[in-house]
Amino acid sequence: MPLIPGAHYIYLGDTARLPYGAKSQATIARYAVESARFLEGRGCEHLVIACNTATALALEEIRGAVGVGVTGVIEPVVAMASGKGVGSEVLVLATAATVESHAYRAHCAAHGLRATEKACPLLVPLIEEGWLDREVTREVVRTYLREALESCSPRLVILGCTHYPLIAGLIREVLEELGSGAEVLDSAQVTSVAVAEGVRRDGDGGGTFECFATDSVEKFRRLGSGFLGQEILGVELLDLGG
Amino acid sequence: MPLIPGAHYIYLGDTARLPYGAKSQATIARYAVESARFLEGRGCEHLVIACNTATALALEEIRGAVGVGVTGVIEPVVAMASGKGVGSEVLVLATAATVESHAYRAHCAAHGLRATEKACPLLVPLIEEGWLDREVTREVVRTYLREALESCSPRLVILGCTHYPLIAGLIREVLEELGSGAEVLDSAQVTSVAVAEGVRRDGDGGGTFECFATDSVEKFRRLGSGFLGQEILGVELLDLGG
Repeated sequence: MPLIPGAHYIYLGDTARLPYGAKSQATIARYAVESARFLEGRGCEHLVIACNTATALALEEIRGAVGVGVTGVIEPVVAMASGKGVGSEVLVLATAATVESHAYRAHCAAHGLRATEKACPLLVPLIEEGWLDREVTREVVRTYLREALESCSPRLVILGCTHYPLIAGLIREVLEELGSGAEVLDSAQVTSVAVAEGVRRDGDGGGTFECFATDSVEKFRRLGSGFLGQEILGVELLDLGG
Repeated sequence: MPLIPGAHYIYLGDTARLPYGAKSQATIARYAVESARFLEGRGCEHLVIACNTATALALEEIRGAVGVGVTGVIEPVVAMASGKGVGSEVLVLATAATVESHAYRAHCAAHGLRATEKACPLLVPLIEEGWLDREVTREVVRTYLREALESCSPRLVILGCTHYPLIAGLIREVLEELGSGAEVLDSAQVTSVAVAEGVRRDGDGGGTFECFATDSVEKFRRLGSGFLGQEILGVELLDLGG
């Protein structure tokens, strides 16, 4: 059930050039701006950068490149974290590029929170492989969390990558096993609520959902249906020139 | 010590668009042809496609796009396997895209060998993370090999991805643990010997090594030095327009 029932959703997955998480700022910004311009050209009135890495490294470039409103996935979840009133220490799990940008640290500092940022580069490949419940995935999560908890005692853990919510339950279990009572916040979920509060609505009926991918539409359909929790039917192949 | 001491080596890493292993044939062929044309333009007299995925999915396109000789990493290792005379059953470990292309199966069949192809999508991320000796990596290798050995009893295992030689020792240990006496062949090593036998030599002195990368030269230097076993100094940033 979409949060904005009457909306016309257009989703673009830059699957030919993913993952962004291990690339440089210049490359990520170039790719993200190309995608944003395409979406504006399709008539989008509001853009959501549904990727923490692109938000962390390219939000300002995207805002400068298009004429419509742009929401990233970092600010809404940090604002919610600061409103929780449960202490100032936050652990952020994210890709290498997001961590190296220190975007979460800067946003948290602006809200009076102290962020420890932990790069978890193996989680996206494990999730893409579909190993959501495997012991190997649990051991990788355990390794990352144990390393992170050596230097902080957070009350909140932010899932700073849109893949991670698929293993949120496992992350909660490992936190508990390691003696942490931290609450887990999903940046994507918080962002979608923030967007729903901010955009105009055309009513409750007639919403549509269009999908574009820059590589194999078949793979996009398969993985995307898992993320969305319902089957994605039409996906159009898009060439961004890369 | 280079196998062709007098040669001028030019290496291009398309790091902005890697990994190729999970992308479609059309996208991989487009990227690989762009790289090949760049190298021919730099004066290369012979191209080595030092990537199993690009060899499996784009060798013919590359041969059609350039006027110089092109060697892939699949044919040499399969020819060597067939010359071993140790039975007709071969297990190939590779990326998802290489496996889906069935390039190894076709080459093996042409040499009278029967290939079982096993996709191992987590091995590249684990190797890029530097987890070469971790228990998690051993468990992932164990999982893939156990699944593969359910349907075959190979005498030879081909490492069908240029990342895998960095964990060749671990792969040998797990094969032994699972009761397999298979010998492990490294496609990159066999290919370089085949290339050295086939090209003209300018003598033993004056060889050079030039490096290009399409993304962060810093990361390329770090990872590339690990692969090469010696420090890479000058790396030039290259924009292929993607």
